[in-house]
Amino acid sequence: MQIGMIGLGRMGANLVRRLIRDGHQCVVHDIDQNAVQALAGEGAVAATSLGDFVAKLEKPRVVWLMLPAAVVQRTLDDLVGLLDSGDTVIDGGNSYYRDDIVRARRLAEHGLHYVDCGTSGGVWGLERGYCLMIGGEDDVVRRLDPVFRTIAPGIGAAEPTPGRRHPDGTAPEGYLHCGPAGAGHFVKMIHNGVEYGMMGAIAEGLSIIRHANVGAESRAADAETAPLRDPEYYRYDIDVAQVAEVWRRGSVVSSWLVDLIADALSRSPRLEGFKGRVSDSGEGRWTVDAAIDEGVPAPVITSALMERFESRGLGHFTDAALSAMRSEFGGHAEKPE
Amino acid sequence: MQIGMIGLGRMGANLVRRLIRDGHQCVVHDIDQNAVQALAGEGAVAATSLGDFVAKLEKPRVVWLMLPAAVVQRTLDDLVGLLDSGDTVIDGGNSYYRDDIVRARRLAEHGLHYVDCGTSGGVWGLERGYCLMIGGEDDVVRRLDPVFRTIAPGIGAAEPTPGRRHPDGTAPEGYLHCGPAGAGHFVKMIHNGVEYGMMGAIAEGLSIIRHANVGAESRAADAETAPLRDPEYYRYDIDVAQVAEVWRRGSVVSSWLVDLIADALSRSPRLEGFKGRVSDSGEGRWTVDAAIDEGVPAPVITSALMERFESRGLGHFTDAALSAMRSEFGGHAEKPE
Amino acid sequence: MQIGMIGLGRMGANLVRRLIRDGHQCVVHDIDQNAVQALAGEGAVAATSLGDFVAKLEKPRVVWLMLPAAVVQRTLDDLVGLLDSGDTVIDGGNSYYRDDIVRARRLAEHGLHYVDCGTSGGVWGLERGYCLMIGGEDDVVRRLDPVFRTIAPGIGAAEPTPGRRHPDGTAPEGYLHCGPAGAGHFVKMIHNGVEYGMMGAIAEGLSIIRHANVGAESRAADAETAPLRDPEYYRYDIDVAQVAEVWRRGSVVSSWLVDLIADALSRSPRLEGFKGRVSDSGEGRWTVDAAIDEGVPAPVITSALMERFESRGLGHFTDAALSAMRSEFGGHAEKPE
Amino acid sequence: MQIGMIGLGRMGANLVRRLIRDGHQCVVHDIDQNAVQALAGEGAVAATSLGDFVAKLEKPRVVWLMLPAAVVQRTLDDLVGLLDSGDTVIDGGNSYYRDDIVRARRLAEHGLHYVDCGTSGGVWGLERGYCLMIGGEDDVVRRLDPVFRTIAPGIGAAEPTPGRRHPDGTAPEGYLHCGPAGAGHFVKMIHNGVEYGMMGAIAEGLSIIRHANVGAESRAADAETAPLRDPEYYRYDIDVAQVAEVWRRGSVVSSWLVDLIADALSRSPRLEGFKGRVSDSGEGRWTVDAAIDEGVPAPVITSALMERFESRGLGHFTDAALSAMRSEFGGHAEKPE
Repeated sequence: MQIGMIGLGRMGANLVRRLIRDGHQCVVHDIDQNAVQALAGEGAVAATSLGDFVAKLEKPRVVWLMLPAAVVQRTLDDLVGLLDSGDTVIDGGNSYYRDDIVRARRLAEHGLHYVDCGTSGGVWGLERGYCLMIGGEDDVVRRLDPVFRTIAPGIGAAEPTPGRRHPDGTAPEGYLHCGPAGAGHFVKMIHNGVEYGMMGAIAEGLSIIRHANVGAESRAADAETAPLRDPEYYRYDIDVAQVAEVWRRGSVVSSWLVDLIADALSRSPRLEGFKGRVSDSGEGRWTVDAAIDEGVPAPVITSALMERFESRGLGHFTDAALSAMRSEFGGHAEKPE
Repeated sequence: MQIGMIGLGRMGANLVRRLIRDGHQCVVHDIDQNAVQALAGEGAVAATSLGDFVAKLEKPRVVWLMLPAAVVQRTLDDLVGLLDSGDTVIDGGNSYYRDDIVRARRLAEHGLHYVDCGTSGGVWGLERGYCLMIGGEDDVVRRLDPVFRTIAPGIGAAEPTPGRRHPDGTAPEGYLHCGPAGAGHFVKMIHNGVEYGMMGAIAEGLSIIRHANVGAESRAADAETAPLRDPEYYRYDIDVAQVAEVWRRGSVVSSWLVDLIADALSRSPRLEGFKGRVSDSGEGRWTVDAAIDEGVPAPVITSALMERFESRGLGHFTDAALSAMRSEFGGHAEKPE
Repeated sequence: MQIGMIGLGRMGANLVRRLIRDGHQCVVHDIDQNAVQALAGEGAVAATSLGDFVAKLEKPRVVWLMLPAAVVQRTLDDLVGLLDSGDTVIDGGNSYYRDDIVRARRLAEHGLHYVDCGTSGGVWGLERGYCLMIGGEDDVVRRLDPVFRTIAPGIGAAEPTPGRRHPDGTAPEGYLHCGPAGAGHFVKMIHNGVEYGMMGAIAEGLSIIRHANVGAESRAADAETAPLRDPEYYRYDIDVAQVAEVWRRGSVVSSWLVDLIADALSRSPRLEGFKGRVSDSGEGRWTVDAAIDEGVPAPVITSALMERFESRGLGHFTDAALSAMRSEFGGHAEKPE
Repeated sequence: MQIGMIGLGRMGANLVRRLIRDGHQCVVHDIDQNAVQALAGEGAVAATSLGDFVAKLEKPRVVWLMLPAAVVQRTLDDLVGLLDSGDTVIDGGNSYYRDDIVRARRLAEHGLHYVDCGTSGGVWGLERGYCLMIGGEDDVVRRLDPVFRTIAPGIGAAEPTPGRRHPDGTAPEGYLHCGPAGAGHFVKMIHNGVEYGMMGAIAEGLSIIRHANVGAESRAADAETAPLRDPEYYRYDIDVAQVAEVWRRGSVVSSWLVDLIADALSRSPRLEGFKGRVSDSGEGRWTVDAAIDEGVPAPVITSALMERFESRGLGHFTDAALSAMRSEFGGHAEKPE
């Protein structure tokens, strides 16, 4: 198929490469002409402007946006005037699913189709393929099947699920049409929420192992310090990097995230390069919002989100208020760092 | 009654004052002779040594220990050889209730009685009276009733509970025999756990109010920063000190802790003096341990404990591991502070 | 002052009573004519219809709505056509603060003033007074001062805050103008979030005490049951009702909520009448939404919200999924109830 | 090598099979003679009694215990009298690491060696191999290397970790000597804690997706029910089983646990067979205890543990107390189920 790609950052460029490799034709556009030229050198058709981009696509056109969430709306606004009825726009970025619902409705007024496609795979997707969670009209999504099939990892990427005797649908290929507009980004949003929780669990576990030698350290013996009752049980110097590595095979927690932290720890066992200020880019927050709207308890995912807020020092006023109360009722002074 | 007090820190000294005021006789001992002399000037009988202290008490002796948890055992060991069968030792500090069970058993071998007395009231107890949670043998605790009655706040300190038509027992006076050895410190431990949770809730709420103007602040618009979808709803500059004050009367959250934070905020609305490194001195940890042993879910209290750990930066390795994983799968770099 | 009240449920009726007692004139309206007549018998002016209600009020009119959140918009729509420029509407219910912002803007187009007033005090407010958190235009709120002053508990309801040497403002009276439209309900919303957290802490603590005798119970000794390592430390039968009562005086956790649970436990020590399905009516959810929007960690309040969801069985699918995973990897069967 | 196995349950029997397959000789014992005979038919040497078992092993003997935690101590006590100085006992079950420390010390008094070996892999280990986390003396563990190597999955079970340019040690084979006595079970304990958190995150995420259609359901409009502000955003009927399947390939959350829930959902998309009463068998509790002792915040893992407690209804009294407080301050009645 022919497909137009707008946004040639790491993800967009690798999608193009994966598509070209598999025989699709890609027309590419980006505000950075260097990015455009680089991909032209790899077989893509370069577009010099949005108008040129649209002109080089055959009708009905297929346009894939791989842009920061903040830029999507503006680009859509520009595109609407240039596209023709029957064309399709795919938003492959991390848009909020509620925006998809509004956008699909607006584009429909112009005879345009809108598909939201949550794309997971990060910097490794070029090789591993990307897990795709798709929302949109049935026939439109069906028409795009060759594109999704190329981008997805394919059935060989994992062992078959034993219970699936009669495999149906595309999920085992690594892509799934989840429902109407927004459904793709909804599932991707929850995917990221799950990711937060899994990451939090792994990081906490490694941290508890990392501190398994607190019993060997000296400890202040004042009224402000909780005593360690059994220091003899905390005298282990365990190599956290080796633990992450050993968990990669045969264990219940084996997972891609454990693979990744094993890699990071193999390079830097104390993670010296990291200050521990953990960003959150929206999906985790929206996941918790959805859980609350639905009334579904999600304490694990929520705790992981709060942990990230804490990591960036956002709880400072809360903590100061706690110290202030302790000072008021007990005359407790804060201990120096 | 005559009572001997060992440990004349803030709490111990104020207990003595409250006892003397109400007509009890107090023999006092401390490693700090200045503390002893100060109270002697207020009517207490000064003891120059542990031997002198024991000698000045009439049999059967009543000895109240008001010491840091770390010193209690040593003092008990010294006392055992000096006391006589029938004497009673009260531990009024913050000992772990499991130590009480062991100590009571050991003292019983010498014919000595042991009473554990959780004491809440902080720096305000001299005036307000102390809430007492008591463990020990029935008749021994009953014999000490005049002492507990004096120290406790008394029935006038709160409105009668409407449902208590036939008030029975001493709880409305502000002291309670909770059960055998350890029961007093068990209830006090849980009291402190509840305190953690209440403090956390109040501090978090005030913090959310304090930050109600984030919509008026500029915000980075990059892929690492969660967007604020509706900044127009976060443009309030609310005076947190006034909020704490208004909550003191008529509201559902009115409580002594709200009184205290209102006081702290009235002195320093931004809590400038506090770094927000919140200590925890054992009872919160033990409360969670007990919840886990019992299999009782205690997510609120537990979150408050974890929040304190976070406030002291103890989650650093966890956070670094999270950043490391994000770097691995998405090439995300940490944002500078 | 003259004031019109629409909505004569428990809260609305008691507000009217408190206003009449203090010499204000009240015109009252409700869809339930019995409620109207009851208050007419206590000195209020009865209105037979919304038109009659508006006609009986002197300009500039002051209308207080004390209605379920779901009915407020409809009533406002009806009122707009009947009121005159310069009139004021106060929403004293539990509206979402974002609705206030929209409503204030719309009413302003008609020359009408809008005041949002979060009202805490529940069934006890008639006697104790209500804590009022107010949003709206400065001069409008100032004009209503006599009304707020009457409804609020008054300065005598609590000891003065020591740090407030020069008391300024109305907060010590129990009412506070928090900011522009929505600020009152914003602060009330957070108040309820704090309430969730405090309630959760108290309930959990009492529950841990209630189960302090698990060591005396027999326990299954199979691979699916976590062993209790030290049963000898969990053999207390502690009277939870007495504990709640003793915490009311002198303790750090003393609070109105402890007063209330002490009352409930004094009537029913095992709380037999309650199934433990805990409702949540919106403010707790909105508080967490606000924390997340602001990026302020609020693990304690959030845990309390999730705990309520769990209490109503909303986590069932999550739990079934956990059991399913355990069954898959370990062949673990669920234990019967 | 020759190795004796006591305990021929699912795990023990599969360990024996894996060892025999790779050319080791296994002497087997169990209180169930059928289990013994079954393995004898597959090439193991059957022992009719503990004495016979010991007699059939060559010195220095290697004895692997694969028993429920509750039975280990008794078996060790029996073995001590039968073994000879220089023999080694491996505990491959789920013992608490603190017991290992005590046991190693006691066995050392008899010249016996003790090795603790946390074994992960569940019912799938026969095929996949088991992840082994080992504690004990250096030379003893080194001597057992052929056994561990056989049981572990082997380096081919996962892609090499890119950062490990000079692979050292055995972790890439799937087994790791973590440190002295107890270190193996310590790491296994934390492994299970991580497992709890990962499971909780996955289950919660799927549950939020499962309930993405709440906006299409009718909802009570009373003061006890939180309103759903935007029902139009919750009208998705998403096939959870397909979602789990699609996440298996290319996504950041791909993991063995996602493989397993995909399998369970493929068999029963609504998980009808499960009541959602999730057991916990000790390691999760101990992990949280360790986090608290160390002062390491672990909110994610802790929330997962509490969620399991909730799933079994253990929060009932807490919930009843919450309902009781709501009834007291607001006259709120519980809603029927």
